[in-house]
Amino acid sequence: MIEELAVKTREGAELIDVTAEVQAIAEKSGVKNGICVVYVPHTTVGLLINENEPGFHSDLIGVLDRLVPQKGSYRHPDGNAHAHIKAGLIGSEKHFIVRDGRLVLGTWQSVFLCEFDGPRTRSVMVKVMEG
Amino acid sequence: MIEELAVKTREGAELIDVTAEVQAIAEKSGVKNGICVVYVPHTTVGLLINENEPGFHSDLIGVLDRLVPQKGSYRHPDGNAHAHIKAGLIGSEKHFIVRDGRLVLGTWQSVFLCEFDGPRTRSVMVKVMEG
Amino acid sequence: MIEELAVKTREGAELIDVTAEVQAIAEKSGVKNGICVVYVPHTTVGLLINENEPGFHSDLIGVLDRLVPQKGSYRHPDGNAHAHIKAGLIGSEKHFIVRDGRLVLGTWQSVFLCEFDGPRTRSVMVKVMEG
Repeated sequence: MIEELAVKTREGAELIDVTAEVQAIAEKSGVKNGICVVYVPHTTVGLLINENEPGFHSDLIGVLDRLVPQKGSYRHPDGNAHAHIKAGLIGSEKHFIVRDGRLVLGTWQSVFLCEFDGPRTRSVMVKVMEG
Repeated sequence: MIEELAVKTREGAELIDVTAEVQAIAEKSGVKNGICVVYVPHTTVGLLINENEPGFHSDLIGVLDRLVPQKGSYRHPDGNAHAHIKAGLIGSEKHFIVRDGRLVLGTWQSVFLCEFDGPRTRSVMVKVMEG
Repeated sequence: MIEELAVKTREGAELIDVTAEVQAIAEKSGVKNGICVVYVPHTTVGLLINENEPGFHSDLIGVLDRLVPQKGSYRHPDGNAHAHIKAGLIGSEKHFIVRDGRLVLGTWQSVFLCEFDGPRTRSVMVKVMEG
C-alpha cells in the first residue's frame, strides 16, 4: 500500500515537517516490523532528516543559498536551476526502520520536505513494508 | 535477483541517464508492488535523481566543480580526491517505490549515474523486492 | 531484528569505519538475499560510503568545514549549527544489497559514521530484510 500526502508550501524555500503524517501512515499500515520508504516525485524538492528548530531551518536554507545562489550563470532554463541542484544535493528519498509499528527516530529527528521552488502543492509518497 | 548494468562513461565528469534500464529490470522482475534498490559499487561515482535536461547536467557538474575543485590541497593520493568527495556528497544508493510493476517516478524525474573520474566502465546494481 | 552498535567517537569531527560491524550483523542475521538498512538516530552525525583512506577522511572533513564553517552567522543555538547542516547534507541512512549472506560492496567501499559534533557515544542501527 502506498499513501500519498499533499503538502502545500507557502514560501520559495522552506522546510516543512511531515514526521507526524509519516508516523501516522506507518501506524495505520499495520506493519509491526520492517521499513518505511518516503519519496518525493519532484525535481525541485528534497527530503531531509534533522531537528525541527526554526534556527536550523533558516541556517540550512541560508547555507544552500550561499553554495548554490539563485542567481548564477546556469544553463538550465526556467530560472530555477538552483532549485534543481539543491534538490539533487539533498535527495528525493529516505527510509526508516519500523519497530513495533512505529518509525525508529532519534529524540531530535524530524523528517522534512524541503521546498526549493515554491510555493506549490507537493506530493510525499510513503510505503511501509513488513520484513 | 540482482541485475547488474555495465555503463561506459566517456567524460571525466558526466551524468548518464539509466532510468530506462532500471525501469526495464523492474518490469522484468515480475514484482508488482515493492521497492527497487539501485547501488553503485564505486567510490568516485554517485547516483542522483533529477531532470534529464542538458542544462541541468552541466549546471550540476559546474556547481560541484566550484565547491570541490579538481585542483586543491587534498591529501588523498591519485589526484582524484575531488571525485571521492563529490561521490560521497551525492551518495551511492537510491531506492524507488514499485507500484503495478513499475517504478513510481515524477514526470520530470530520471535516475543518473554521475561519473566524477571517468572515462571508465561502471557497474550499476539493481534489486527489486516484493513487499 | 534490529541490531544497534554503540560507537565512541574521539574527535569533534571524524569518520569511523563501521563496515566490519555491519557486515557481521548481516552475516549473523541468516538473511541470504535482501537488503540491509543502516540508520543513525542523531542530528549531528551522518552516514557515508567511500574509501577508507586517511587522506580522504581529512579531505572530506576539510571540504565540509570550508563549505559550512564552524563559526558563522547561524541562528541555531548551542554552537553546533554547522554540525546539523553537515549531517543534513550527508544524510542519516544508507542501504545495501545483501547477496549470499553478505553486503555487496565495491572493492574500495567502506561505510562510515561521520561525527560532526563529538566526541560522544553514538548509535548505529542495522536492520537486515529478506526479499
